[in-house]
Amino acid sequence: MKINENTNILIVGLGIIGGSYAKGLTKKGLKVHAIDTDRETIEYALANNIIYEGSTEADADLIGAADVVIFALYPHIFKEWIRDNQQYFKSGAILTDVTGVKGCVVYDIQNMLRDDCEYIAAHPMAGCERLGIQNSNEKIFHAANYIVVPTERNTEEAKDVCRQIGKLLRFARISELPPNDHDEMIGFVSQLTHCIAMSLMTCNHTEKLEDYTGDSFRDLTRIARIDETMWSELFLLNKDALLHQMKLFTMEFSKLERMLMEADKEGIKDMMRRSTARRKLFDKEKPEEE
Amino acid sequence: MKINENTNILIVGLGIIGGSYAKGLTKKGLKVHAIDTDRETIEYALANNIIYEGSTEADADLIGAADVVIFALYPHIFKEWIRDNQQYFKSGAILTDVTGVKGCVVYDIQNMLRDDCEYIAAHPMAGCERLGIQNSNEKIFHAANYIVVPTERNTEEAKDVCRQIGKLLRFARISELPPNDHDEMIGFVSQLTHCIAMSLMTCNHTEKLEDYTGDSFRDLTRIARIDETMWSELFLLNKDALLHQMKLFTMEFSKLERMLMEADKEGIKDMMRRSTARRKLFDKEKPEEE
Repeated sequence: MKINENTNILIVGLGIIGGSYAKGLTKKGLKVHAIDTDRETIEYALANNIIYEGSTEADADLIGAADVVIFALYPHIFKEWIRDNQQYFKSGAILTDVTGVKGCVVYDIQNMLRDDCEYIAAHPMAGCERLGIQNSNEKIFHAANYIVVPTERNTEEAKDVCRQIGKLLRFARISELPPNDHDEMIGFVSQLTHCIAMSLMTCNHTEKLEDYTGDSFRDLTRIARIDETMWSELFLLNKDALLHQMKLFTMEFSKLERMLMEADKEGIKDMMRRSTARRKLFDKEKPEEE
Repeated sequence: MKINENTNILIVGLGIIGGSYAKGLTKKGLKVHAIDTDRETIEYALANNIIYEGSTEADADLIGAADVVIFALYPHIFKEWIRDNQQYFKSGAILTDVTGVKGCVVYDIQNMLRDDCEYIAAHPMAGCERLGIQNSNEKIFHAANYIVVPTERNTEEAKDVCRQIGKLLRFARISELPPNDHDEMIGFVSQLTHCIAMSLMTCNHTEKLEDYTGDSFRDLTRIARIDETMWSELFLLNKDALLHQMKLFTMEFSKLERMLMEADKEGIKDMMRRSTARRKLFDKEKPEEE
């Protein structure tokens, strides 16, 4: 399937990510349809030409016309939605998603899905601490990673459709990972970092600290503004991988604590050198000029 | 003392912070002199009109002409410098600094200093992960906090000189803290955050993680590039305060770990709500348009 102006695209869930997908794909000249249970969201999206058509309900016609369906829902709602509405899919439709954890979602959905449709998981690694379509912005993808997360059951065609979406949305890098590797990686780079930011934000109750805060503290706590419904669900769905990463971090942090207690200056310096060297690998490529 | 174009200002140490001070003050029309042991640094500063005059040595004339001397040196070098060169100061000179820890520096220097000069500590809470005068940039101060850290021995005049410097450099906020409160605060907002960033950077050796990294991880590890000579010294000079803050953080992080083990969704959500609410206090005021 080659995605072009004749492809019928349906996005289910127009939050910050679904809305940003809609903006990005509409700007590429595609006809984007959407379903969101919130009436104001659909009205806003229509009034601002973010989508071509929309509904607050699982409209059989809208669903049945879609060649590609992109789900941007909470994981448990995503599963329920498939269970309740999969009879409406067009035969041959390709489904994908933006869900932040995969192992606990992908196999369940592939197992319950009709044989004549295909679901392939994907994860756009971008976000925003503000929520809702009003804050959506397709530029959050331009310097970000897009990960296709196929299982053995996925076809080359479906992987290709995902890669096309990643390219249309102008992600800086498109890659592929199996579900388990994805969840381990996400436990480290995304979930552990949110656990750290939250703990840093709540561990010291001194008043007026904000008067003295530098950029370091602001950087480390930007993601401490966190949507508790979404993230508590994501944490618990990836509990084992996350707990493992938390343990690795705690062990390393304790090592530093011990070196400090023992005034082991050389040990601290050595850790700082390793930290500096490893951080250089993670410098971001500059996004194209907008 | 009113700082104006007739005030002779001397900066000792033209690194990233000393250099940024020099640029900012020179742009305000002041005559800035500098001492740095590195010849290239002085040559660069002169060639780029960052300073008016400079020397690689503790030049008696240069020191003796200064009304205000600003020290931007490693803490232990700062103390040695005062011990070795204080005989050259002009009577009535006001000395200040940019050192990141205070308790272990301020009293020692005030105790050893000649009676006819005054040293008042100050801390510009801004920095940069790159080093050296080539990377200096006075704009790093424009949205930042500037803290005057007086003791009971400091005069109103000296405090006022510090505040004038803060204003000339266009800091967003100028405040005052006693040395112990300063060190406790810095242990939390600056040193603890660097310990976290380092531990996060070195706790997981998986290769190719950089291919999948989102903004969260980059934000939390920006400061993992760390000058080991400076920071190991700052950590050890503020050891007790830092260890206390590390303990507070570890306790909070362990609480979250436990809630996750027990799948205590409500507890996790509650912590997320507290984190979100507290983070809002720390949103940065926008700097003026440049």
